[in-house]
Amino acid sequence: MLNFTSTVRVAYSDTDQMGYVHHNNYVKYFENARWEMFEQMGIPYSEIERKGYMLPVIRMDLKFIKPVLYDELLTIETILQKISEARLIFRFKAFNEKHILVNKAEISLAFIDAKTRIPCIAPEFICEKIAIHRIL
Amino acid sequence: MLNFTSTVRVAYSDTDQMGYVHHNNYVKYFENARWEMFEQMGIPYSEIERKGYMLPVIRMDLKFIKPVLYDELLTIETILQKISEARLIFRFKAFNEKHILVNKAEISLAFIDAKTRIPCIAPEFICEKIAIHRIL
Amino acid sequence: MLNFTSTVRVAYSDTDQMGYVHHNNYVKYFENARWEMFEQMGIPYSEIERKGYMLPVIRMDLKFIKPVLYDELLTIETILQKISEARLIFRFKAFNEKHILVNKAEISLAFIDAKTRIPCIAPEFICEKIAIHRIL
Amino acid sequence: MLNFTSTVRVAYSDTDQMGYVHHNNYVKYFENARWEMFEQMGIPYSEIERKGYMLPVIRMDLKFIKPVLYDELLTIETILQKISEARLIFRFKAFNEKHILVNKAEISLAFIDAKTRIPCIAPEFICEKIAIHRIL
Repeated sequence: MLNFTSTVRVAYSDTDQMGYVHHNNYVKYFENARWEMFEQMGIPYSEIERKGYMLPVIRMDLKFIKPVLYDELLTIETILQKISEARLIFRFKAFNEKHILVNKAEISLAFIDAKTRIPCIAPEFICEKIAIHRIL
Repeated sequence: MLNFTSTVRVAYSDTDQMGYVHHNNYVKYFENARWEMFEQMGIPYSEIERKGYMLPVIRMDLKFIKPVLYDELLTIETILQKISEARLIFRFKAFNEKHILVNKAEISLAFIDAKTRIPCIAPEFICEKIAIHRIL
Repeated sequence: MLNFTSTVRVAYSDTDQMGYVHHNNYVKYFENARWEMFEQMGIPYSEIERKGYMLPVIRMDLKFIKPVLYDELLTIETILQKISEARLIFRFKAFNEKHILVNKAEISLAFIDAKTRIPCIAPEFICEKIAIHRIL
Repeated sequence: MLNFTSTVRVAYSDTDQMGYVHHNNYVKYFENARWEMFEQMGIPYSEIERKGYMLPVIRMDLKFIKPVLYDELLTIETILQKISEARLIFRFKAFNEKHILVNKAEISLAFIDAKTRIPCIAPEFICEKIAIHRIL
């Protein structure tokens, strides 16, 4: 199981007229968090695409526990929960500055061959990096 | 069970560099679809807010079945699946122009008192409208 | 001079915590308006891309005259102001339901060859359609 | 004249199917940059709102000089160009990692009394902080 912690500052444009972060922004926060994790592991997402693979989201399940305000600093915990032949499953927890859990999510991605646009098995250069980081 | 059908045209700004609709846009499509449904039922969301209530999303679970391209016209089927004392649960299906299911979602909302910002039971003016439309 | 009128309903996710439409959304409203205009003229933007051209924005100048609220229906007047060898200049006016001008903009786009990613002159199939619609 | 430099990493959701940053995202980058500047000056925007003022954008003029790709790190130079009785005018320059200018903008904001929603003169607590930082 691979863990990663990152932070994100809530932008003004992320709020809506309730005065809270609009629910679709968590999707962006978690997307940025998982690619920051991969960047740290030596497999930046831009390289994955350059090598001919794409990783579209095939499922996302988010629970909104506490509302979040403009300018709050969120801490995101990212866990690479599962790697199957053709999929990655990530879990995310977002905490506010008082260490209160504000959001919990599970997001699944599939490996796609960018040329054929057909699902494919996880390429070796990714599996290797994940294996190395599991051991560390 | 209440049904509603609406359409949405995919905007250029909804795409990402994969050439598909970025996954966070479905969240907006479904938000617009449910408030169009409520508008048709005589309870526009702007009136709900004016009367002192808010309906934040507390959970959303989306499955991405087929990628969608710029300029496609999606048909959204919205079902008001369940109304409990304090919650609404919606189900959504999005179809492309070839009538192929591209996305399936379940999204739950909670009634909040806008003044106290505390969860509350569904206000009568909403329950009444829902009851009328169930019978029709 | 080519004119086109379209409408857009303000989505909840377009608001921010001031309770108004966040300023970056007008950019999307005007983008959708100009491609609706081109669609009507028989040159949908998706076809322009399929034929190997892109039309990125090279300048945008927007004036925010009146704030706009959630659920307002805006009427957008689009004018294709100028066509030079390599550019299109559009002017936009957005009006609220009381016919009050809420936003005014000028947005310039350049023709780019999608393969070389180098600026190019306006392709004939676009110039022809524009010429036809000028005469009508 | 007050200067401030900040950075922003281009998110995947900021790209469109051209493979470049969609033009409306620069608006967010510059909004975040100016409030980071104000935060550094001891007047976070959240405090401005808490004290009863709002600063909506009344004009924005952006020039797109070079396209920007996913995952690029942009350096934003923010200049508080002018403070009049009722307005702030900011200038922005965005540079890519090769120090090439990619975007140039001028964005004007007006002071609004949040209660009456009427334009007002710049509150003293902001003018003071700006005056202090001009001298430094």
